[in-house]
Amino acid sequence: MQQQRLVWLDCDPGHDDAMAILLAGYSPDRVKLLGVSTVHGNQSVDKVTLNALACLRAYGMLSSQQQQQQQQQQQRHLVVVKGSSKPLVRPAVHCAEIHGESGLDNREGRPLFPLDDRAGLEAHLDQSGKCVNVMHDHIASAESRVALVATGALTNVALLLLVYPELADRIDVVLMGGAYGLGNTGPVAEFNMQIDPEAARVVFESGASVTMVPLEVTHTALATEEVIARIRKDGACEFRNTLCELLCFFKDTYKAYFGFEDPPLHDPCALAYVIDPGLFETEKIRVDVETGSSLSAGQTICDRHNLQKKPKNATVAYSMRVPEFWDMILSAVDRAVEEVGTRPAASKT
Amino acid sequence: MQQQRLVWLDCDPGHDDAMAILLAGYSPDRVKLLGVSTVHGNQSVDKVTLNALACLRAYGMLSSQQQQQQQQQQQRHLVVVKGSSKPLVRPAVHCAEIHGESGLDNREGRPLFPLDDRAGLEAHLDQSGKCVNVMHDHIASAESRVALVATGALTNVALLLLVYPELADRIDVVLMGGAYGLGNTGPVAEFNMQIDPEAARVVFESGASVTMVPLEVTHTALATEEVIARIRKDGACEFRNTLCELLCFFKDTYKAYFGFEDPPLHDPCALAYVIDPGLFETEKIRVDVETGSSLSAGQTICDRHNLQKKPKNATVAYSMRVPEFWDMILSAVDRAVEEVGTRPAASKT
Amino acid sequence: MQQQRLVWLDCDPGHDDAMAILLAGYSPDRVKLLGVSTVHGNQSVDKVTLNALACLRAYGMLSSQQQQQQQQQQQRHLVVVKGSSKPLVRPAVHCAEIHGESGLDNREGRPLFPLDDRAGLEAHLDQSGKCVNVMHDHIASAESRVALVATGALTNVALLLLVYPELADRIDVVLMGGAYGLGNTGPVAEFNMQIDPEAARVVFESGASVTMVPLEVTHTALATEEVIARIRKDGACEFRNTLCELLCFFKDTYKAYFGFEDPPLHDPCALAYVIDPGLFETEKIRVDVETGSSLSAGQTICDRHNLQKKPKNATVAYSMRVPEFWDMILSAVDRAVEEVGTRPAASKT
Amino acid sequence: MQQQRLVWLDCDPGHDDAMAILLAGYSPDRVKLLGVSTVHGNQSVDKVTLNALACLRAYGMLSSQQQQQQQQQQQRHLVVVKGSSKPLVRPAVHCAEIHGESGLDNREGRPLFPLDDRAGLEAHLDQSGKCVNVMHDHIASAESRVALVATGALTNVALLLLVYPELADRIDVVLMGGAYGLGNTGPVAEFNMQIDPEAARVVFESGASVTMVPLEVTHTALATEEVIARIRKDGACEFRNTLCELLCFFKDTYKAYFGFEDPPLHDPCALAYVIDPGLFETEKIRVDVETGSSLSAGQTICDRHNLQKKPKNATVAYSMRVPEFWDMILSAVDRAVEEVGTRPAASKT
Repeated sequence: MQQQRLVWLDCDPGHDDAMAILLAGYSPDRVKLLGVSTVHGNQSVDKVTLNALACLRAYGMLSSQQQQQQQQQQQRHLVVVKGSSKPLVRPAVHCAEIHGESGLDNREGRPLFPLDDRAGLEAHLDQSGKCVNVMHDHIASAESRVALVATGALTNVALLLLVYPELADRIDVVLMGGAYGLGNTGPVAEFNMQIDPEAARVVFESGASVTMVPLEVTHTALATEEVIARIRKDGACEFRNTLCELLCFFKDTYKAYFGFEDPPLHDPCALAYVIDPGLFETEKIRVDVETGSSLSAGQTICDRHNLQKKPKNATVAYSMRVPEFWDMILSAVDRAVEEVGTRPAASKT
Repeated sequence: MQQQRLVWLDCDPGHDDAMAILLAGYSPDRVKLLGVSTVHGNQSVDKVTLNALACLRAYGMLSSQQQQQQQQQQQRHLVVVKGSSKPLVRPAVHCAEIHGESGLDNREGRPLFPLDDRAGLEAHLDQSGKCVNVMHDHIASAESRVALVATGALTNVALLLLVYPELADRIDVVLMGGAYGLGNTGPVAEFNMQIDPEAARVVFESGASVTMVPLEVTHTALATEEVIARIRKDGACEFRNTLCELLCFFKDTYKAYFGFEDPPLHDPCALAYVIDPGLFETEKIRVDVETGSSLSAGQTICDRHNLQKKPKNATVAYSMRVPEFWDMILSAVDRAVEEVGTRPAASKT
Repeated sequence: MQQQRLVWLDCDPGHDDAMAILLAGYSPDRVKLLGVSTVHGNQSVDKVTLNALACLRAYGMLSSQQQQQQQQQQQRHLVVVKGSSKPLVRPAVHCAEIHGESGLDNREGRPLFPLDDRAGLEAHLDQSGKCVNVMHDHIASAESRVALVATGALTNVALLLLVYPELADRIDVVLMGGAYGLGNTGPVAEFNMQIDPEAARVVFESGASVTMVPLEVTHTALATEEVIARIRKDGACEFRNTLCELLCFFKDTYKAYFGFEDPPLHDPCALAYVIDPGLFETEKIRVDVETGSSLSAGQTICDRHNLQKKPKNATVAYSMRVPEFWDMILSAVDRAVEEVGTRPAASKT
Repeated sequence: MQQQRLVWLDCDPGHDDAMAILLAGYSPDRVKLLGVSTVHGNQSVDKVTLNALACLRAYGMLSSQQQQQQQQQQQRHLVVVKGSSKPLVRPAVHCAEIHGESGLDNREGRPLFPLDDRAGLEAHLDQSGKCVNVMHDHIASAESRVALVATGALTNVALLLLVYPELADRIDVVLMGGAYGLGNTGPVAEFNMQIDPEAARVVFESGASVTMVPLEVTHTALATEEVIARIRKDGACEFRNTLCELLCFFKDTYKAYFGFEDPPLHDPCALAYVIDPGLFETEKIRVDVETGSSLSAGQTICDRHNLQKKPKNATVAYSMRVPEFWDMILSAVDRAVEEVGTRPAASKT
């Protein structure tokens, strides 16, 4: 049986990020979540940070101030820190057409989780220093290697490895992003890589262990009607209904924008790899990130046949056992409902 | 029923080109072959030109001088002309590891078709002018549009369209090459496009009708043991045995170099598209050819979702009905055997 | 004393091209002009072709039909042929802000030389074939090497060398264009190279002898008030006045667009190099043409210190003795006036 | 009279860096040096850090531990901190051919300043945190804007601005590097920019005030025989002799490698700009850093005519009044000799 892994989640919620957070928080046998950092991407870093806080609260993953003090002593406190507002070099690009104005809209075009108590939410942010320094302090002092799961642009991760190159030996980067064939927001580029290609190149060339869960895999994690029905159950639980609302919003935008019948739940796939790598078929190969071409910047060029004779630098996932993936998600939902379910989801603090 | 199409074949034989020539010569209901031009690629243009002549002779497709005069009067003479020895801008690159030193080796490392009568073979070459001028003269005076099937680098085709841009309205370029995902000789680049990316870009941006039959399709045209057995029949026919020898050489190199169990017969797929487009699932999309990046020069960047809002410029094949493809090949083999079969294949002139 | 050189002029008139034609036509001791080809650039190829014909007529360099027959027998007939309408790969770009709508405007915004007799002018065009074929036929059959002076985009020259690579040994390309520092229409790119970078790259990598007269040199060939006064003389000669009008139009646009006090007469500098290379300080170095970068496509990257250890492929001019240059221009003007001067400049045919 | 400016010096000594340190330390009316950070470049970061410490000691700019405590109270302590060992993305490149194995060799191929007391030297390094954090803390708490003078690769500066983007309003970056024409280690690229083009791009696009003192300027700061004689004076002062040895080593390598008669003293020019901007002719223009092209990565593309209509982002120096520059250097030498001169230069601690 696989050991419990320490996880840091770097994300830009985002509908699929929100499900990744749930999975990270409610897979306790496999994963212990140290912290959550946010990064520009699906929306501005300010918006996605609020979203992260709001969904952590809704999931019962934020602690009251009282709890915090106790937890800090027991080292169980969840750190939340705001990261980079823009890519290393390029201007920021967001993705409102898929995630809405708030970055985590519901079907009425309003935030899925309540954002009105902004001050209350932001009180939970770690203010002890810049994001890279906070990440460093927790990762460097952790009792074992940390899986750094990145479900957004790689800006924070790149900066962490640039300022603290010695961490390359302490982390396993597991990222949702890239593609070996067609892209999504570029002909051959996936959004997370496309919006900060230089950061992606830094990470892939950092010497750190990097595992890439690309579009080809995440496009198989389709939230079908059957999946949604399993999450909804009898429709009596508000928390379950909110998660279904999340999936249905995503379904609508993916249908409108990409013509998908069912939406792919990209980000939780990277978490799933940390929880159970056995679900994935992978290969260690050379991956280069294109930064020069205006046609393909952000492409993850996968040299499967090792034609360039360069050192292999990334483990690329080629496929995932989808039914087991959904079972894993459903288990996390069940556990979360146990924790938060009897109370209305939105009222927690 | 589809009408007979005029075809000009631009090729670099090459084992799969050699099968494309057979298919072009022996699909008389569907295709009338006007001429064959050669281009650097699988080997030097001198070598592939000799190979083209030698296999045309072996197939009974070259005519004696007497016949030529008659044929010219009847406009049935097959023109053979030697084209460019190098790419538009870059130095020439050949592919001996797949096609051998001669460019069309047999399993003993000797030329599959006899090349010793070099002068006799070269006497069949059209010497009336430069390749582009010869191509132009025949295409411009043809009674209908011409399918220009390109199974090598696009150097000749690009030059033809640069010198005679008005031909863009008279030809349908159907090319074997490109990929929308992984490449073969580059991580994301296919050999024919990779060795002359600028020529490919010229062709794709010429305004001519372009159909691309990419690696994803040609990698399904696998010459399995069953296919080879159908070609060999009872093993009593030398001509059939020679074709099997060709496939087996290709099988060996594809196994050694790419790890394929069965070799893909790339080039005839482009011909098959002209013969029966109904076998193919296609879509008209935007294709850009990367010429700048050192990582991906020659990549055919396929904008399937039209993310760049550029005009669509190419019909891309996504799949081919493989059993019908092999039936088509087998029919051509049968017809060729009828023509040449009772005599030993190599002795024809 | 230097021998008379055979010259072919490839140009896009254009005010400075018009002066280059005059210099080519009236430097008889040094230069024999075989032909003039035109190319897209300062304006569309149709416009610059008319301009070339109109100024050849004004200069007395076109012959009547009677004369033509005699001249063809004596091989003294000047060939004029229309070349490429667009760059090898990219869309065409023109430069009306410097040369006006006609490509050769006067200060009233009308064509400097009369263009109304379009049919009469076009009757002088060689119609025997495509430009590259016409160029080839005259160059290949010339009694000695030919200086191919290019004062526009290198599209025609590139195509000539692509279709007839063997001509690389028969021609000396002398081009106006490029820069080793700042550009004119791009930060580091000169117009002629910038509008067809791929053609420039073909020419520089063709193996042909290439001499580049860059912006740093041509920006010293300033048509000062003193120069214009020398051309105008007493103001009584209509032909001289027209040339001054040409220079003054150029002066206006260079002042408005680039802030120059006096306009640089780029194109005649390349001709001057052929007439008297002794006026120039030059060095043979490596020149690469950037084709990939969107910031600097068309830049002529001059490796003066041979840092890349690549073979040297171009003679680059670093400076020109400007007073002698203007003497050379003035001599040509004097000779032209002798030929055409007593008659009003515009009425010749 | 210009006010005293706070200066942070980021450098990779390096012979010319060593002179820049002297100038920074001994121009007390104009400049107060807060700190010195080091960066990979002329040699490895370990070597250039030792060199920086050794020359600070030789110049009497390092304080004893006793002094340090006093100085820290008085905020006069000079911080020295070791920065990045490699560029943001690319592998490190050093320049032993110009600066020798130690990075600061004398003519006998030994370190110019004694390096044997490595532990003693390194005891002076600030160990309170990563370089960017140390830089930030001192710059953010400084009483006024800080001139961040960068005489090496821009890796540290880029990281500082990436982690602390708010510092863009607190610093004026003044850098030695770039070129608007020919480069030095690349055809069109200057060494400092070429070895970390991505860092340069980050800095130029950061929004911070950036002044670039390019090769065209620094190549006029030639240490002629006359200059060296003025520094040497009567030859009786060991400290003066060591500085002359430094210049003579540089003279030798510049002669051998670039064919210069006298060596250009690049780095002090950037300091000189901070000390007296009036010596320089400058213009605010658009500068883009090429990161994509393999021919020209690191080129600083200077859009002097604003052809691209992009916002202006850098003040570029076009010329420097050289005699005043040398007077400034000589004054600093005189002051340093006053401070350290009676004692043998190498024995200070």
